[in-house]
Amino acid sequence: MKLSDRVLGMQESPVRKLVPIATAEKKKGKKVYHLNIGQPDIETPKVFMDAINNYDTSVIKYSFSQGEPILIDAIIDYYKRDGMSFEEDNILITNGGSEALTFTTIATCNPGDEILIPEPFYTNYNGFTSAVNVNLVPITTKAEDGFHLPKEEDIVKLITPKTKAILFSNPGNPTGTILTKVEMDMIKRIAIEHDLFIISDEVYRKMAFDGLKSYSMGELDGIDDRLIIIDSVSKRFSACGARIGAIISKNKSFTQNVLKLCQARLCVATLEQIGAAALYNMPSGYADEIKDIYEERRNIVYNTLKEIPGVVCEKPQGAFYVVAKLPVENAEDFCVWLLKDYDLNGETVMLAPAEGFYSTKGLGKDEVRIAYVLETEEMKKAMHILRKALETYQK
Amino acid sequence: MKLSDRVLGMQESPVRKLVPIATAEKKKGKKVYHLNIGQPDIETPKVFMDAINNYDTSVIKYSFSQGEPILIDAIIDYYKRDGMSFEEDNILITNGGSEALTFTTIATCNPGDEILIPEPFYTNYNGFTSAVNVNLVPITTKAEDGFHLPKEEDIVKLITPKTKAILFSNPGNPTGTILTKVEMDMIKRIAIEHDLFIISDEVYRKMAFDGLKSYSMGELDGIDDRLIIIDSVSKRFSACGARIGAIISKNKSFTQNVLKLCQARLCVATLEQIGAAALYNMPSGYADEIKDIYEERRNIVYNTLKEIPGVVCEKPQGAFYVVAKLPVENAEDFCVWLLKDYDLNGETVMLAPAEGFYSTKGLGKDEVRIAYVLETEEMKKAMHILRKALETYQK
Repeated sequence: MKLSDRVLGMQESPVRKLVPIATAEKKKGKKVYHLNIGQPDIETPKVFMDAINNYDTSVIKYSFSQGEPILIDAIIDYYKRDGMSFEEDNILITNGGSEALTFTTIATCNPGDEILIPEPFYTNYNGFTSAVNVNLVPITTKAEDGFHLPKEEDIVKLITPKTKAILFSNPGNPTGTILTKVEMDMIKRIAIEHDLFIISDEVYRKMAFDGLKSYSMGELDGIDDRLIIIDSVSKRFSACGARIGAIISKNKSFTQNVLKLCQARLCVATLEQIGAAALYNMPSGYADEIKDIYEERRNIVYNTLKEIPGVVCEKPQGAFYVVAKLPVENAEDFCVWLLKDYDLNGETVMLAPAEGFYSTKGLGKDEVRIAYVLETEEMKKAMHILRKALETYQK
Repeated sequence: MKLSDRVLGMQESPVRKLVPIATAEKKKGKKVYHLNIGQPDIETPKVFMDAINNYDTSVIKYSFSQGEPILIDAIIDYYKRDGMSFEEDNILITNGGSEALTFTTIATCNPGDEILIPEPFYTNYNGFTSAVNVNLVPITTKAEDGFHLPKEEDIVKLITPKTKAILFSNPGNPTGTILTKVEMDMIKRIAIEHDLFIISDEVYRKMAFDGLKSYSMGELDGIDDRLIIIDSVSKRFSACGARIGAIISKNKSFTQNVLKLCQARLCVATLEQIGAAALYNMPSGYADEIKDIYEERRNIVYNTLKEIPGVVCEKPQGAFYVVAKLPVENAEDFCVWLLKDYDLNGETVMLAPAEGFYSTKGLGKDEVRIAYVLETEEMKKAMHILRKALETYQK
């Protein structure tokens, strides 16, 4: 009676594995600023709960396997306002972006197949793929290039007969990098030439700073049959705990087959879908307000980091993360030390060691991911603590 | 650019695939009595929404990957009242029983491994397993034996080096059969002798009629290391749309490894967990009330079926389903005909063809599953329509 190789081979979430240490320290009275997880402190718009409370909750019934029509319609409208046109059967509602990615992996890959992915990447992509026996093949990107993609030939040479798709998040988690139009066109070209699916994780779309625009892959022509967009209300509407995501694709064979996966698990929580529909229906001004808030926080984090001797990082362009190289040998040891052995007047910070965001062994050992998800005063305090902690640690 | 064999090979949900036909007929004005899906009409207890409305919903935050402590504690208490003792780290909260089964399959089986299962079985077990390349090996049971298990040697001879677990639902979906203590002991003996996990889907527990008791496998000694209980609020508390389930096991290596799968998908919807905790905390008298309601409906369905010439079925002992052999050649054709071509004063019934509940080819072709999930007067009307429809169909 042995557990499966696939589950034994999975890594623990690098974002969550230090949680027990943090919990223990908090019990002792230490205050921990959480920069380790993409959990925004911004209030979920009230329309979410209002919609749920206006819904008939006498019997909490199964929803449709594809999703609640009211939510699907809201998503269609939302994309229409951004100049993209989708139809009802292009959209499947999922348990967060997480399930969307799991289903997409199962439907595009057999065991042993491969998916190309720029690294560092959202660490849970490892979980979604390895749990179903699919291998991620990293396209290494570097801090000094602002984590932009390497040359086309460097990507193409990674393609094998087992490569089924190219997956990326844009704006990027954990890098905050936004793909340029030139990069998006390159991805399109590679995908067409080598007959790959394009899996575009756009859960941070519209979180773009310095006047930049983050385009959706849905705005490109000629890839309707191979494009799969992953969306979610978690970040854009500060509703992580709602677990509402979506798969969006014009490839009907793909969506029809993924619907079988949706049917097997019956449906996504009904009430949360009703609330999520109200979120997608909000005026587009909301996205700008949110973006401004994160841009201000980004500035605090980036400006502090630039002042700390030995820290290397590029200015992130979007999302709400930054990957920083720290003047330490092992960032995970440092993160544990921050929690267990350090405090500044009873306070410390929690970061995510970045090694787990790389697939290539040895990369990211001295890097951390910082999520700027606290309001500005808290953010300033947290960054001050980090700076002081690094001074102490280096002694 | 081809979809994966595993998704192409999946069957459409036999419970849900006739939905488009039903929807079209309903649009034309036909009333359809839904006996095809286990969606009870009973009201979800008000404590569910009350708990959610009393919760701080200003930021809908991620929950813990393992689950909300308040819900885990409520489940521990619930089992304690039934004489079973579990600890916090024995319990993982999942997106319904569905995700619990998917995670359990991934963690116990590699691609190509096998799980034994009495057939007919809950059809979505096919989806949970084939999506992750695991094969179900059927232990055929028969209507004339009340769908009870065959002899021990008939089960044992199905075991191969690839067999990792034995899975069953008790009380049974779609059969309504409740395992006897003798059968439970046999399963225990086989599992120990052949070193298998026991996956006991107990989402219908406490729905037992005629004074019978449905035991939990958790009440048996000597299988703590191999027992995995699947639970859910869907049926017992009439909260299908909440999508709250649980994996319960004392095998620490198993739960620790499944926690990695939980971490990859971050968490289950936060609000629904708060509501579900209130459901598990309800006084145990609620289960008896619900049981009495279903028992009355069971009697209506069973008594009508026994009066229809050519129908073969055993009296179901629990859950809220019955599998009936109909005097038709192809039950799916009959179900489609019921929806499209038949009505009695503008009304018809929707049933689930049972073929999809069997894994052995050819079995169940003339059988349907009937879910008795409507209140008694509606149930009587629906069964009257079925009887009249069969008369017409046979002409």
